[in-house]
Amino acid sequence: MRLSHMDEFSFIQSIRPKYYKQSSVIKGIGDDGAIVKPPFDSDLVMATDTMVNNIHFSLDYMTFEDVGYRVLAANLSDLAAMGSSPLYYLVNITSPKYMTNSNLKRIIDGMKELAGQYKMDLIGGDTTSGNELVITVTVLGSLPNSKYRLRSSARLNDIVFVTGNLGESGYGLKLLQSNVEHHYFNQKHIRPSPRIDFVDATTNVKRMCLNDISDGLSSELYEIAEASKVSIAIDWAEVPFHDEMASLDHTELRKLTLSSGEDFELVGTCSDEDWNKIREVCDQHQIKVTQIGQVIDDMTTQPTVYINEYGKRKRLNREGYKHGKN
Amino acid sequence: MRLSHMDEFSFIQSIRPKYYKQSSVIKGIGDDGAIVKPPFDSDLVMATDTMVNNIHFSLDYMTFEDVGYRVLAANLSDLAAMGSSPLYYLVNITSPKYMTNSNLKRIIDGMKELAGQYKMDLIGGDTTSGNELVITVTVLGSLPNSKYRLRSSARLNDIVFVTGNLGESGYGLKLLQSNVEHHYFNQKHIRPSPRIDFVDATTNVKRMCLNDISDGLSSELYEIAEASKVSIAIDWAEVPFHDEMASLDHTELRKLTLSSGEDFELVGTCSDEDWNKIREVCDQHQIKVTQIGQVIDDMTTQPTVYINEYGKRKRLNREGYKHGKN
Repeated sequence: MRLSHMDEFSFIQSIRPKYYKQSSVIKGIGDDGAIVKPPFDSDLVMATDTMVNNIHFSLDYMTFEDVGYRVLAANLSDLAAMGSSPLYYLVNITSPKYMTNSNLKRIIDGMKELAGQYKMDLIGGDTTSGNELVITVTVLGSLPNSKYRLRSSARLNDIVFVTGNLGESGYGLKLLQSNVEHHYFNQKHIRPSPRIDFVDATTNVKRMCLNDISDGLSSELYEIAEASKVSIAIDWAEVPFHDEMASLDHTELRKLTLSSGEDFELVGTCSDEDWNKIREVCDQHQIKVTQIGQVIDDMTTQPTVYINEYGKRKRLNREGYKHGKN
Repeated sequence: MRLSHMDEFSFIQSIRPKYYKQSSVIKGIGDDGAIVKPPFDSDLVMATDTMVNNIHFSLDYMTFEDVGYRVLAANLSDLAAMGSSPLYYLVNITSPKYMTNSNLKRIIDGMKELAGQYKMDLIGGDTTSGNELVITVTVLGSLPNSKYRLRSSARLNDIVFVTGNLGESGYGLKLLQSNVEHHYFNQKHIRPSPRIDFVDATTNVKRMCLNDISDGLSSELYEIAEASKVSIAIDWAEVPFHDEMASLDHTELRKLTLSSGEDFELVGTCSDEDWNKIREVCDQHQIKVTQIGQVIDDMTTQPTVYINEYGKRKRLNREGYKHGKN
């Protein structure tokens, strides 16, 4: 059963935007569907993510606003990984009976806080009852000039790079679960920043392969390697992490930087020429980018990811561990 | 936790279309998002619906394929109510651990069966674990020539009409819950037909106000009345239902036809002139349409829905009951 008519009506009224920031929204919330007229010279990108309470987030250490913020951030990260600028979003919430309309509104408020940074409009959704809190967000973005940033576009000898630092969200989560308050790392987990800034800065770059780091660096590198039918070698010494994490146990540091996901940073590959351009514009916009490796020819037919460490090259597996004895 | 990598990978491979029917799909399943290039002379319509096991459907009397079919049908009905032709869909499934990849694939197979009728493409989605089965479908459709079929476009003296018969899904559900097999009515509940055929037949109609009957006729009429700031009077004698339902108790028949939802038929309003055109094209395409009432001036400022019955006009409430003594 959905919310009762009056409850649903008042809830929708409470979240319905007073005006839409995107002039392409013809009809937003309030009919059987939304109508938009996207820019005619752009392609449209769509992505969707579902998060479940106590699996992808927890109300134990997150506010309702945090939860909304984080679910939308994960979706915006997918848009970023496609090289796309955000336009609209839709929200579906299944919630247990003990949750009030005011709780639901706070989830939406958290989303609106993030959406507002990108002039994104909430244009639709659905609310239902259920046993647990399940939130689905679907985002749409524009992609001008056919600048596709696909996983399959890595080429031999490309530079492999990442944005920001790795493992901060995972470290923040660990601290939260141990009841350790550390604003910087905690917030990296609770309110991650999707790298839309990187997308906006690099619209003129000719060719880029991009993935967002939602499941851990190793896993994302394998996705690129397999989609592009190439092999990749990264250097452990170049993997960027926060100074304060340097004192962590080596095994833990490797796990956080190579295997823990949801940093929502980007990993990509590009030519030497494009890398110079990327460094230049990222420098202008104060976005940290680091070369961590290269696309290589390892003379095999099986796309593989390697890590160079202490002068040796070893195979990495998807989970971020080296093959054979570590 | 999502499905494990290999499970998710093999599941995605199993549902990924071999080719896309819509030539506008540039990148479907297999990256961080989908890329499409919608027809430049059309607007885009988006709608989304979430259904939860044992609330909106039940695996007790529905197969996994039925469930998939029905969730997509509900979404297509929203597109129909917007006058839009289906293009693409995205699917998010949260499922309990006892459900196998094969179960999930059967849900998608049911969707594909319906989607195939409209050359619709599955272009994205997400799978997560959870305590109960929750399915969200998001659909996109095209709307050429700015033919908006909004709730707010009813005008004084408009004809009020419905497609098909009312109450068949509700009656089918009742029979299913009483373990009565009746193929026709059971199927009306399990595999409802969204009225995309009506949309396709009426693209040339100048102005139409449309709503799909998902929450019951009375409730939908109120939505039209309030959005258009008009009042509406319908005639009980004109409300169309199946011959076999004529023998039902009067109270039950009224409840089924006026209050039970999910028939996914359409209710609309239009001018006399457009009504002639609608009847003509629906006749050609063998689509049943029935005039059930009119948009009236009742000299009040509060949009109201009335029912004429046995020579008397009484106020209907949202739930389909007459006001005051019945």
